[in-house]
Amino acid sequence: MIDPVALARDLIRVPSVTPDTGAAQAVLADALENAGFRVWRHLEGEAPDGPVANLFARKGEGGPHLAFAGHTDVVPPGAEDGWSAPPFEARVENGILIGRGANDMKTAIAAFAAAASAADTGDGSLSFVITGDEEGPATFGTKALLSWMEAEKQIPDHCLVGEPTSRERFGDMVKIGRRGSVNIWIEVNGAQGHVAYPHMADNPITHLVEILSRLKARVLDEGNEWFQPSNLEVTDLEVGNPAHNVIPAQARARLNIRFNDGHRGADLAAWVEETAKEVTAKANVTPIISGEAFFTGPGAFADLIAASIEAETGRAPELSTSGGTSDARFIRSYCPVIEFGLVGKTMHKFDELTTVADIEALARVYRRIIEGYFASPPA
Amino acid sequence: MIDPVALARDLIRVPSVTPDTGAAQAVLADALENAGFRVWRHLEGEAPDGPVANLFARKGEGGPHLAFAGHTDVVPPGAEDGWSAPPFEARVENGILIGRGANDMKTAIAAFAAAASAADTGDGSLSFVITGDEEGPATFGTKALLSWMEAEKQIPDHCLVGEPTSRERFGDMVKIGRRGSVNIWIEVNGAQGHVAYPHMADNPITHLVEILSRLKARVLDEGNEWFQPSNLEVTDLEVGNPAHNVIPAQARARLNIRFNDGHRGADLAAWVEETAKEVTAKANVTPIISGEAFFTGPGAFADLIAASIEAETGRAPELSTSGGTSDARFIRSYCPVIEFGLVGKTMHKFDELTTVADIEALARVYRRIIEGYFASPPA
Repeated sequence: MIDPVALARDLIRVPSVTPDTGAAQAVLADALENAGFRVWRHLEGEAPDGPVANLFARKGEGGPHLAFAGHTDVVPPGAEDGWSAPPFEARVENGILIGRGANDMKTAIAAFAAAASAADTGDGSLSFVITGDEEGPATFGTKALLSWMEAEKQIPDHCLVGEPTSRERFGDMVKIGRRGSVNIWIEVNGAQGHVAYPHMADNPITHLVEILSRLKARVLDEGNEWFQPSNLEVTDLEVGNPAHNVIPAQARARLNIRFNDGHRGADLAAWVEETAKEVTAKANVTPIISGEAFFTGPGAFADLIAASIEAETGRAPELSTSGGTSDARFIRSYCPVIEFGLVGKTMHKFDELTTVADIEALARVYRRIIEGYFASPPA
Repeated sequence: MIDPVALARDLIRVPSVTPDTGAAQAVLADALENAGFRVWRHLEGEAPDGPVANLFARKGEGGPHLAFAGHTDVVPPGAEDGWSAPPFEARVENGILIGRGANDMKTAIAAFAAAASAADTGDGSLSFVITGDEEGPATFGTKALLSWMEAEKQIPDHCLVGEPTSRERFGDMVKIGRRGSVNIWIEVNGAQGHVAYPHMADNPITHLVEILSRLKARVLDEGNEWFQPSNLEVTDLEVGNPAHNVIPAQARARLNIRFNDGHRGADLAAWVEETAKEVTAKANVTPIISGEAFFTGPGAFADLIAASIEAETGRAPELSTSGGTSDARFIRSYCPVIEFGLVGKTMHKFDELTTVADIEALARVYRRIIEGYFASPPA
């Protein structure tokens, strides 16, 4: 039987600032092998986005197959004097664990490992889908591991992601979907000239302002029962023209669209390009889709998770689709995916922390989910 | 009698890259004193916009009083290997004078000095209003010299500025007015935040795009008989936000308005500020008025200049208000001012040049203007 707090502290003590190239996963692999899992470890990719360590572990060969997904990499701790305790010491004081990864999300991995080591899985299979690059470019992370799993016929029937989804109190929120995200760069080329002779120049800023104005004018949607409205924000403008009397040759903008399940990233990128080209042919539009929106349930899988939380905490969690993206954006193409973990208020900050009681409660909730899943598999 | 070509070459050989702190004006002062002028020389201002040398010279004490205004400073020559002849050698080859200041505007000063040394001014007064800082910030240049002249009761009745106003052929254009110019900085402050939670942030780019869109939507005017329409160009945008997922805290834009005599710089600045504040209270607007529009004539003074050009070249010049600003923007507050000089196509470029024949023709035109002025003073 794995102790979730002890394993969490062991994992935090390995400073696996993104990307984890294997150091923290070695600790996890030992624990899982001792708990009866077969472990596959991969080191994938090359600089600049690699190498990245990924780990897949499975116990059981039959169905149904429930997977837990997470990541061992953490964001940089920043200046150590911003912390009350050294970020990789995993100090516990007054029932509080401080350290980088304390809620995002080495603790959740440890809690699921503890639950897995204790739970009865019957004839089914339980697996871990663990990447070392969720906080970075994610080029060789979960996406690559899923490709390998598909080739090896290891795709699960359902997946639970251990991101810190609780907002204020442990168990108050589960994510049953996430908005998608696309970053789009717009570059407008004009013709440089003296500002006193505008008819001999073509001001790219005039076009860019018109493009952005038209983009902002469109209401993408009103949201729906489960998602807030999709939204476009311009996140950067750049011209860099030091001369007061010169019309510049080029102007650039970058924007981000967070979109719900009524849109696809490629369609939004096409709309932005079309709008830009309506204003000027000399616009170049470059989209990078970070992830598509996903939406799982509500339904039997969400009900199982919510019931497990309520049984343990006495509170029914909110089923939400708010917030940023996670690696669930990759998993969504393979199977239903839901996210549940600790309170994430301190994630990515100094003094990232969680209570020891919450880690233990999370392990118990995860065990309820596992046992409920195999006792009565969701459709 | 002053030889205009010899004096022009002497002036060019003194490399008075803006600001001229006196070197080139010493050469001019000698020539004017020999021609019967009384010369006052001032060194004004302190770093960073000074010190700047200004020169006032006058022959005669009675009225009417005609002034010639110009500048001895030149723009930097740039890399010397961009030139066919060294920029401060004043080389003459095949009737062409090459050098920095060949048309903007040491030649015009020399031509007026030659004309002044030969012309009959009767009981009137002829003066030179020469600055060493027309190409730079102009803080301590013509403006400061005019203040001194006003205090000394030396303000002329009319002023001719020797800027290179001819466009394609010598004498084809006279400037009887210039548009005004104002640069305006707009800074919009918002509230930084994660792009996934826009309701918890306030995107300053959204406001800035709206402000610029409203500003561009207004037709300032349709122009008039003498001026082209006033025009606003956004010349710079700056956010400088490297993070794709962050709504920035601040966004900035810079714009320039070239306006005709139907507007005042301060009114336009007030309109920009009002428009910005309508969109968001957190906008700061900072205007710097480079110069107000001016318009002189048509009338007797313009007629005299046009007739003198036509008598010498056989062509009637176009009376224009096009192009950038000049120090006439300062003189306009004191007396009617018109600009006429050589062909300016190569000004501020490598191989700035003029023909020797044009310098001599300019000296003859200036002499016709002077003699015509004192024979029959314009009202």
